[in-house]
Amino acid sequence: MTAGPGASIPVAIEPNHDEHLVAAVERAGGKIVGLDEARVLVWIGLPDDFPELSDAVEWVALKSAGIEDFFDAGIVDDRRVWTNASGFYAENVAEHALALLLAGLRQINTAVIRHWDKERIDTSVRSLHGSTVAIVGAGGIGASLGPRLQACGARVIAVNRSGRDVPGADEVRRSTDLDAVWASTDHVVLAAPATAETRHMIDAESLAALPDHAWIVNIARGPLVDEEALYDALVAGEIAGAALDVTDPEPPAADHPLWSLPNVIITPHVANPASGLTREFAPWLAKNLRRFAAGDELISVITPGREY
Amino acid sequence: MTAGPGASIPVAIEPNHDEHLVAAVERAGGKIVGLDEARVLVWIGLPDDFPELSDAVEWVALKSAGIEDFFDAGIVDDRRVWTNASGFYAENVAEHALALLLAGLRQINTAVIRHWDKERIDTSVRSLHGSTVAIVGAGGIGASLGPRLQACGARVIAVNRSGRDVPGADEVRRSTDLDAVWASTDHVVLAAPATAETRHMIDAESLAALPDHAWIVNIARGPLVDEEALYDALVAGEIAGAALDVTDPEPPAADHPLWSLPNVIITPHVANPASGLTREFAPWLAKNLRRFAAGDELISVITPGREY
Repeated sequence: MTAGPGASIPVAIEPNHDEHLVAAVERAGGKIVGLDEARVLVWIGLPDDFPELSDAVEWVALKSAGIEDFFDAGIVDDRRVWTNASGFYAENVAEHALALLLAGLRQINTAVIRHWDKERIDTSVRSLHGSTVAIVGAGGIGASLGPRLQACGARVIAVNRSGRDVPGADEVRRSTDLDAVWASTDHVVLAAPATAETRHMIDAESLAALPDHAWIVNIARGPLVDEEALYDALVAGEIAGAALDVTDPEPPAADHPLWSLPNVIITPHVANPASGLTREFAPWLAKNLRRFAAGDELISVITPGREY
Repeated sequence: MTAGPGASIPVAIEPNHDEHLVAAVERAGGKIVGLDEARVLVWIGLPDDFPELSDAVEWVALKSAGIEDFFDAGIVDDRRVWTNASGFYAENVAEHALALLLAGLRQINTAVIRHWDKERIDTSVRSLHGSTVAIVGAGGIGASLGPRLQACGARVIAVNRSGRDVPGADEVRRSTDLDAVWASTDHVVLAAPATAETRHMIDAESLAALPDHAWIVNIARGPLVDEEALYDALVAGEIAGAALDVTDPEPPAADHPLWSLPNVIITPHVANPASGLTREFAPWLAKNLRRFAAGDELISVITPGREY
């Protein structure tokens, strides 16, 4: 499916012309133009530098998955369609979540530091197969992660606000049932957006309710976890470990006590590596541009106030 | 399916009565006896201590997956049936292989040591999804690993001697085609037994043939890898990294040069943790004992000289 010669869509890529995205737009039948001629704006910068838009711009494609900063800055309006990249990056983030969970369960963090400490590691290794994993905030990332976990022999509980079905989930729970989830899962993957409602969802109470062999993985946003409560729970042995790709704030202080714990893995917010973003984003943009040219509904449309 | 009251099978568990296995035998309708009365011997010791057997022993269940030591010691005879536990442990080993590969690709080893070194890690993280993984020696472990890799979005090449189909493989190659495999895969998982034929299968030549972004995972036996050649290839950047659960010898010397490399992950032979072996082995033994009582073919029968 390509746009015909008459359907060449004028696209601005701002604030700079990324080579991967330029190539993708041209492959999809688009034409690179300045913002004043554009029907489509691909914005790969920060919210601070976002330009004034005329009504000629019908669609703004943001390359981020987490776009709360654009909402907070009042940039997302209702005079055009806005898309983010949450669906596209979901595969990458789901993979990182699985990597973190397996690294913790198989004690790879310990093995890297304590060379051939077989006695300690052999007794600490746990299996993902046969366990239950709750994915909290099961949108696109959850839908990508669920089938991966199932293929690893785990049972998947997806938690979302509506209780609607999620691919790869053996059971779906509403977020109002979180107390029951903590009591019935072995491990937790946080994949929810940062909102007032999700802030410190992992706190002293939920940590106490989880089994002492639980690993918590956070590939979503730092504020979902009360880090002081997490530290206390880890020291007290209330849970087995935590693997975090996000913290609050980022980076954590160099002397943050979480760094000192042997059962904590922290990766520097690389579930979606920035260095590969436009390379990975390019085919998605091309696909969405073809849909735009054909008048089809776009993928990953942002609906202010919607459930993630 | 349980053995009837008249079918109680006399089983010896030697050299010691492991509680998990005793319970499993009794649950499956067996009766724990001394070796002189046994029709079945469950041997959980080393080859060195293996007892003389009368022809009354019809089945010997070994709890190991790698049983070359029992072959080498001339213990495995053709006067009874011998089983190992390769099929049963396959899930566990496959899981560890996936954990090692993902840890390397997602740079979790680096993150554990270099706290929030975002610049370095962000540019080094790679994705399993979209890549090709060759599983060399695709028996039970390969059959467990293939579907896990596919669920992660990888393409799977299985390599075995016969070229026979393997579950979860997108393509099957004979081990005589290894040169073509090195040239067409992104990553390699070694799952072959240690034989004269597989010794140093990973050597200077195969390392040079692999792409420079390749990770090699070894969850099989140390001698499959020429560790000097591996070290040289890693230092020269001929491959991206190596994740080893086995080495030659084990443990590696404390000053072994592989320990010094940032792109090497070594776990201390814990793909099948010894501390959990009998607990994990117990349900498998019960299942096989029920088959024995019913006269059905046993699972994981050892055939001397067969292909693994």
